[in-house]
Amino acid sequence: MQGVKPQPAAVGRPRSGTRRLPAATAREEILDAAAELFAQRGYAATSTRLIAEAVGIRQASLYYHFGNKEQILAELLEATVRPSLDYAAELAHQDTEPVAALHALAMYDVGVLLTARWNVGILYALPEVATEPFARFRAERDRLREAYRVLTAAAAPADAGGFLGDLVFGLVESVIGMRRDLPVAPTEELRRAVAAAVLRIVGANPAGR
Amino acid sequence: MQGVKPQPAAVGRPRSGTRRLPAATAREEILDAAAELFAQRGYAATSTRLIAEAVGIRQASLYYHFGNKEQILAELLEATVRPSLDYAAELAHQDTEPVAALHALAMYDVGVLLTARWNVGILYALPEVATEPFARFRAERDRLREAYRVLTAAAAPADAGGFLGDLVFGLVESVIGMRRDLPVAPTEELRRAVAAAVLRIVGANPAGR
Repeated sequence: MQGVKPQPAAVGRPRSGTRRLPAATAREEILDAAAELFAQRGYAATSTRLIAEAVGIRQASLYYHFGNKEQILAELLEATVRPSLDYAAELAHQDTEPVAALHALAMYDVGVLLTARWNVGILYALPEVATEPFARFRAERDRLREAYRVLTAAAAPADAGGFLGDLVFGLVESVIGMRRDLPVAPTEELRRAVAAAVLRIVGANPAGR
Repeated sequence: MQGVKPQPAAVGRPRSGTRRLPAATAREEILDAAAELFAQRGYAATSTRLIAEAVGIRQASLYYHFGNKEQILAELLEATVRPSLDYAAELAHQDTEPVAALHALAMYDVGVLLTARWNVGILYALPEVATEPFARFRAERDRLREAYRVLTAAAAPADAGGFLGDLVFGLVESVIGMRRDLPVAPTEELRRAVAAAVLRIVGANPAGR
């Protein structure tokens, strides 16, 4: 629970001076507060009331922006995969050579997962994520997995074994657990280590480890 | 929720004929029912009352075996790492050559994670796991990670990059997510694929992919 600072006294007072993110909209502040509470206190244990208190707004104001708690979580989860999905599309559009594209996507994706303000990916494991409000998130994450499969199949030698794309996707997402478990995770070194390991998994000779 | 079959009518009736696991003790049946409910319905949403109902015993009988819900979860989590930890100790005792030992440990560990009746590893991500009742589980999982680090350092060439042990540990544990996400995960093929990928990550030339 440390690091979670609900502000019970803030309910209803003017928001100026209480902002979590200086240049953010109320909507962005709600997402940020929810991400912190969900990741550190847990999704089930976090109410929309608690989120509103952490932002310093009334619960009614929160409901102006989001219909319910599921919508907030869905938007947070989608934000963990959409940038990498867009980047994969860009790489495909540019017709980048498969080994280079796979390396670039892994670097980018790990960067997204490690540098987000809160480690929202930890919430992938919630049983709620299997339900309807998260169908779009699941579809987008499936598309990202598929992008890894396509690049991996193109980058690997013909005799490579099965599951390569899934193993690469799993390795990339494993930084979510490392970010939680390791005392310090030096972002840049870890990014490079993961991307290099991805190339070794597919058996593509990396230019320099 | 599918697959979860609480048996409300069973409370207090004789247990004969209602057993989930024919040859199991009451304690084992409680662990099995809890694992299913925690993994499929969620930890927060599962009460000891619901677990007792699923087993067909009174809640008081459950408390004869376990002091609280945390104790049940701790025991389930420890069971996901202890066999592999014991196996790592055995390999060290036998002075197995590092590359062979790393391959054997990955095969064994993935087997444990994929063949357990319920995918309990999905619960590693619970925020509750950071609290005191799970200190022993966390310490044992840390020891398993350390075993991978030691074997990886011994198996990898001297110029291998950082984080190799953590990457290997992350790849092995990524089968937990695959077991949940992939429509079918053919255990044997996936085990071999992970173990081969582990050797490629450390840059040790596997004898056959």
